[in-house]
Amino acid sequence: MSEPTPAEANMIPSEEFARGVGVDTQAVDDVRAAVAQHNAEAVEKTLDAMDPADAADVVEHLSAEETQAAAKLAPDAFGGDVLAELSDDALEDVVESLNAGQIADAISDMEFDDAVQLVEELDEGSREAVLAQLPTQERASLETSLNFEEDSAGRLMQRNFVSAPQFWTVGHLIDHVRAALPNKLPDVFYEVYVVDPAFHPIGTVSLSSLLRGQRATLLTELMTGLRTIVTPDMDQEDAAYLFEKYDLPSAPVVDSQGRLTGMIMVDDIVEVLQEEHAEDMLALAGVSDAGLADTVIETVSGRFPWLLANLGTAILASFVIAAFSDVIAKMVALAVLAPIVASMGGNAGTQGLAVAVRAIASRDISSANVRRIVQREIMAGFVNGLIFAIIMGPIAYLWFKSVPIALVIGAAMLINLIIAALAGILVPLSLEKMGADPAVSSSVFVTTATDVIGFFVFLGLASIVIL
Amino acid sequence: MSEPTPAEANMIPSEEFARGVGVDTQAVDDVRAAVAQHNAEAVEKTLDAMDPADAADVVEHLSAEETQAAAKLAPDAFGGDVLAELSDDALEDVVESLNAGQIADAISDMEFDDAVQLVEELDEGSREAVLAQLPTQERASLETSLNFEEDSAGRLMQRNFVSAPQFWTVGHLIDHVRAALPNKLPDVFYEVYVVDPAFHPIGTVSLSSLLRGQRATLLTELMTGLRTIVTPDMDQEDAAYLFEKYDLPSAPVVDSQGRLTGMIMVDDIVEVLQEEHAEDMLALAGVSDAGLADTVIETVSGRFPWLLANLGTAILASFVIAAFSDVIAKMVALAVLAPIVASMGGNAGTQGLAVAVRAIASRDISSANVRRIVQREIMAGFVNGLIFAIIMGPIAYLWFKSVPIALVIGAAMLINLIIAALAGILVPLSLEKMGADPAVSSSVFVTTATDVIGFFVFLGLASIVIL
Repeated sequence: MSEPTPAEANMIPSEEFARGVGVDTQAVDDVRAAVAQHNAEAVEKTLDAMDPADAADVVEHLSAEETQAAAKLAPDAFGGDVLAELSDDALEDVVESLNAGQIADAISDMEFDDAVQLVEELDEGSREAVLAQLPTQERASLETSLNFEEDSAGRLMQRNFVSAPQFWTVGHLIDHVRAALPNKLPDVFYEVYVVDPAFHPIGTVSLSSLLRGQRATLLTELMTGLRTIVTPDMDQEDAAYLFEKYDLPSAPVVDSQGRLTGMIMVDDIVEVLQEEHAEDMLALAGVSDAGLADTVIETVSGRFPWLLANLGTAILASFVIAAFSDVIAKMVALAVLAPIVASMGGNAGTQGLAVAVRAIASRDISSANVRRIVQREIMAGFVNGLIFAIIMGPIAYLWFKSVPIALVIGAAMLINLIIAALAGILVPLSLEKMGADPAVSSSVFVTTATDVIGFFVFLGLASIVIL
Repeated sequence: MSEPTPAEANMIPSEEFARGVGVDTQAVDDVRAAVAQHNAEAVEKTLDAMDPADAADVVEHLSAEETQAAAKLAPDAFGGDVLAELSDDALEDVVESLNAGQIADAISDMEFDDAVQLVEELDEGSREAVLAQLPTQERASLETSLNFEEDSAGRLMQRNFVSAPQFWTVGHLIDHVRAALPNKLPDVFYEVYVVDPAFHPIGTVSLSSLLRGQRATLLTELMTGLRTIVTPDMDQEDAAYLFEKYDLPSAPVVDSQGRLTGMIMVDDIVEVLQEEHAEDMLALAGVSDAGLADTVIETVSGRFPWLLANLGTAILASFVIAAFSDVIAKMVALAVLAPIVASMGGNAGTQGLAVAVRAIASRDISSANVRRIVQREIMAGFVNGLIFAIIMGPIAYLWFKSVPIALVIGAAMLINLIIAALAGILVPLSLEKMGADPAVSSSVFVTTATDVIGFFVFLGLASIVIL
């Protein structure tokens, strides 16, 4: 066999291109086996050989018990670089197995915003113990961040950023950056914020335009005026929306006096988007946060509350059926057909609800267009109702050879699909207006409406028309 | 009244901080009124005075007809800067009203990746006409991009990037960038890609480390080794996952020979994340893409297919009920209680499904942990089933004073919640394995299983035990 030429050795095989998209299952198996054999060295060797993000991926594929055992066994494999990449759930499992000194060491190796995320996961007691081991300044900064509310922009903010007065040139700035102590600069930054004498940000200069500029060029010549401003008390979802809308790589954060106080980076925003997406999607399906968790108990407790609410709804709907027991006893066909009306309403309502929740989250509904959207939903409900009345009526007739039944199910279908459209759009809008999260609580109201009204209209009409 | 001091004048009122989070409803009203009055100047004046992203937001709040009318009336208000910020739907409406020359002008003002997105929205005929008006080089680049599949990384890629050979110093690179023709450089970039002699990327240098470095420093000293590589044929979702995992501000794209051929920026990835999230959430609720659209017809056609599929499911379930007509005629309580069992199964199945779809999308399920996750779901289904059997049995007893009914509904609840757990996890995993999108098609299978089996188990057990 001949040695590959340097060019060949450098050619990346096409499978390699896709590396990173999947988890390294071999490494997961290796770590799992090493944990089972209490082989600390093997755990460390496997994880240390990987990119920290890939190592974090491996850890996330272990069970909670395996993760805790691995961290206890080989704490050195869980340095700040790996911890910074872990999901909140996995991070919680790891820190449970590390002592305060080990966690404090990891924090010293982390970027500030990642350190905040880690400290968030600690319980009250160990948080105190860890903070006590940190240098005073770092401790103070972390404590300041933790004073901001959870899920606020303040928690995402780092305290290091690069700012420059309006009168500076490119040369001034480059000299300033080169002379700055490394721990006073962010590890990575994409923009420099230009500030006025009162330290209010007035614009940003991208590093790429800085690189292109001559030393004597004034920063204000390269500057883009501020397109938006983030405050620490802003909801992280709002901050993420601003990044998306204005295509920002980073954003300056100002305090209540409008003075530049921190910086948020886009990679943290990408994480926020993923987090909020997951939350919305699961909330719509009636799964609370804990539903993502690892153990059976946590899984059950994340799903039980909504199932209980649904049981209430279902029992309510069955009261309606019970109220029409006499009619059903005389004509069992009604018991056969009634669930169809309720089911169609439930589905149509869920469709409208998903569209509405999505539109609210992406700020596509405002007072400027809400009327048009509500009208569109109701019209769409009416049209779909008509279509399904026309489809279902004949089916019911062919099945039960009864014109009244065909008419009743057609009418009930039309009415319930209009109700579904109304509930699907008005319930989330009302909840939003009342300050509740429409993703979390809407479903139960919508399905209650479509179930109860579906059964009531169908059985009610039937008892009038048929008896 | 005294004049505000400069510092006061500079103080940004706290409402202003939140600017950008909501749409400017006044501007929406102004544009709408101007369109109604055919006042081209007023449309232009309102939109031109705003940040392009804010102007785009205003346009997105108009109806399709209003948008088309505004674009026809005041084409100059829809320059490349605004078009680049529009959602796909709004963009489609605008370009319908512009002629090929106006669209070509807008494209010349746009970044390359935004231009690709615009051309994607054009129908075959006007695409030809627009491309014919562009300079040969620009046209050729756009056509190359359009050759990549829709939703592939190739479509997100821009052709301008900054690369440097391994032996260059910071000084070499800065001189190179300053001397480069502006149209050969990307408008904004965050990193420089270091390439080997065969033009394979071997690492990245962030502009912030470049800024800190001395002129004589070798780029390789500042370089971070490549953490991942994107290829043009990669699904945009996979590319987005890599950005998220490795916290990338940009990524080099290589061709099939591994040579650097383009660059993807994080702001495009943020858009992809939002798009894919919206798709998943709506697909799970049974709404196809068109469901986001503007008109009633589009809304209906986006929802009709899934409602039709659901009708099929519901009829199938009602066949099961019909098969037990005799039992129901003898005991109407069964008709009252059966929908509760089906409804609980449907909800539990939907919960599991949402968790599974989410975990698949975020690559949290792999062969390394699938067994544990399936076991956890089944166990959680069993535990929830047991709890609700214990809750529902006594309720049914109190209601109908029948021990057999209480036992039957308890058993049916337990069985159906286990079925729901199985379907909720196995259906999406199987679809994923078969190459189908689990978000799009899973729901109908899961609810069919829980409806049909729910009714069958409850009524079947009842007919055995009670009769």
